[in-house]
Amino acid sequence: MGPGPSVAHPRALRAQAAPLVGHLSNVMLQQMDEIKQGLQYLFQTASPYVCLLSGTGHGGMEACLVNLLERGERVVIAQNGIWGERAADMAERLQLEPVVLRTGKDDEGGSAFPVDTLIAAVRQHKPSALFVVVGESSTGAHQSLGGGRLGQACRDAGALLIVDTVASLGGVPFLADAWGVDACYSGSQKVLSGPPGAAPLCLSERAWSKIQARTTKIASFNWDLPMIGRYWQWQPGAPRVYHHTGAVSTYFALRECLAVVGEEGLEAMWKRHSDAAAMLWRGLAELGLEPYVADPQYRLVTVNTIRVPDGADWAALVGHCLKEYDLEIAGGLGPSAGRVWRVGLMGYSCTRANVALVLEAFRTGLEAQGWTKKK
Amino acid sequence: MGPGPSVAHPRALRAQAAPLVGHLSNVMLQQMDEIKQGLQYLFQTASPYVCLLSGTGHGGMEACLVNLLERGERVVIAQNGIWGERAADMAERLQLEPVVLRTGKDDEGGSAFPVDTLIAAVRQHKPSALFVVVGESSTGAHQSLGGGRLGQACRDAGALLIVDTVASLGGVPFLADAWGVDACYSGSQKVLSGPPGAAPLCLSERAWSKIQARTTKIASFNWDLPMIGRYWQWQPGAPRVYHHTGAVSTYFALRECLAVVGEEGLEAMWKRHSDAAAMLWRGLAELGLEPYVADPQYRLVTVNTIRVPDGADWAALVGHCLKEYDLEIAGGLGPSAGRVWRVGLMGYSCTRANVALVLEAFRTGLEAQGWTKKK
Repeated sequence: MGPGPSVAHPRALRAQAAPLVGHLSNVMLQQMDEIKQGLQYLFQTASPYVCLLSGTGHGGMEACLVNLLERGERVVIAQNGIWGERAADMAERLQLEPVVLRTGKDDEGGSAFPVDTLIAAVRQHKPSALFVVVGESSTGAHQSLGGGRLGQACRDAGALLIVDTVASLGGVPFLADAWGVDACYSGSQKVLSGPPGAAPLCLSERAWSKIQARTTKIASFNWDLPMIGRYWQWQPGAPRVYHHTGAVSTYFALRECLAVVGEEGLEAMWKRHSDAAAMLWRGLAELGLEPYVADPQYRLVTVNTIRVPDGADWAALVGHCLKEYDLEIAGGLGPSAGRVWRVGLMGYSCTRANVALVLEAFRTGLEAQGWTKKK
Repeated sequence: MGPGPSVAHPRALRAQAAPLVGHLSNVMLQQMDEIKQGLQYLFQTASPYVCLLSGTGHGGMEACLVNLLERGERVVIAQNGIWGERAADMAERLQLEPVVLRTGKDDEGGSAFPVDTLIAAVRQHKPSALFVVVGESSTGAHQSLGGGRLGQACRDAGALLIVDTVASLGGVPFLADAWGVDACYSGSQKVLSGPPGAAPLCLSERAWSKIQARTTKIASFNWDLPMIGRYWQWQPGAPRVYHHTGAVSTYFALRECLAVVGEEGLEAMWKRHSDAAAMLWRGLAELGLEPYVADPQYRLVTVNTIRVPDGADWAALVGHCLKEYDLEIAGGLGPSAGRVWRVGLMGYSCTRANVALVLEAFRTGLEAQGWTKKK
């Protein structure tokens, strides 16, 4: 019940234990075709440019930046936590020109950007791309794309919209096509409840065209999306060409995870996550605990950040949960280190029973510390 | 029985089905510590700079080039097949200065370099690094490092020795420390008989110092070895710092694979692979088939390349093996495409029974084509 890896779905674990097959065998190619269908549903896209990268969410981030942008190109990065920081870091390494937006001073985490602020930044800086994070798992902030407003503004300004959905996809509404998202990626070990090691990725036609129009080589072989696209057969009927050996077992697992998503349905999943978060916060409020993200509109339901109150020992509570309940929750990360507890409600582990267990562990843990809310 | 993924060890598959744990949990960190011990044995190194990358062998190649070299630095690439080609491609993408050595005309695959040729090239070009491939799986060539001679020559010339051991490690003798290797990487799905998705990596103290002395940023966050080294605790007692979410299930599997290596012992493994190759070639000779690699000193035992004789249909034979024997072998790749069959003898699947099955499948497959050796 931390920010991930979440508990893996038993079907994913079982699929993972199947014997290996060749990375270009018919069995594998069929799995990959079915994975593409599952990803189209998950991202809510009709784009053929979907795949799993054989890597983690960071691979997805790096693949988007290194493929969609060329050296010297400007990218506006909406930074409200560690993921924006890392995207800015990557942009520098790749010799892009990052323009970093912040929600406030560094010590005021737990917020996201008004969509109008982002739109104004795109108009002002005229970047080749805007990078935003839907689920900032370090602070528990949820960035809105304003329905399709942000995507439209990016299109109007000739900028691509790159969206990190690692900690959010499947748990909160996300409509890649309807919202005009040009590139987005996620992780396998969050709401999908699979093993880490495969990053779902989706590109729009516009993003694909931008890659085709590059005048310089993509500065990474490993993340070369046109080559990866030949392995995943993004062009119907084109021959499959070997780029790397896909992570066979992890793909098997993800195939199951995506089937589970299809069986439950996205609307039902979104509701399950939002209901669980409501139950969690009701219980936490009874214990006298408060959200780190002050503004309710910016609160993420998949990673919930709880402000560590004065007088409480965050590390002791994390230890209590692990020792007494075999329950993993997390402290803060980056801007929120030492200031929050993070409770993940993601996929298979997002159940009322687990929320009840978390609440009980918090109750006894705070009691053991002698902490009580000041009246 | 192709060039990989090879058949996974049942213990690896079983380990992979275990529930996930947190990527910084004590269970995970202990697995990682044990993996480091296993890798030290596998690479025959006392270096603390060993780890699994959460990626495939290509990730290992890219990680070595992007960490050990800075833009504009010269790297001599011993290219005798697809892996050298790809290393040269990566070097260009990373704006290095590749100097490519070839064994002959492009249509004369199936060879490797005399060690003296490589030594002369290092002395002539004075590169920052030399890149060689021990097991060139596209052509079945085995590159010798001349015991420690090549490593010594590199040290004398101030060059790092980077070695690709993806298709060979565990199947042929390799002594990273004794041979003066500065950086080497492998794959999980070859001799180790694990799932694809984790790349064993090892750096020498000299390679590590070179990274420390960089004046420019490493042009990849995902493959940033100093950050990955903090996750793997390369400095004793240093705090573990989150870089990415390790591929938990794949690491579990690799922990088992490395235990299996330790139980059998490297000398026994090397002998098992070499004995199996001898049995294979004895049988193939009886069928009238010949090695693609003409010079016996350059023949790799883990990936065996069989020349497709005049009048035989390589694709039909591959289909016959799959259809009649549920047996996967491969055709050529890159320079050897259409010219060879490739039979992998790697790890768990490297058994006399499997060799006998391959021979029987070849015998009946050639018979079905009506191909017989001209007397």
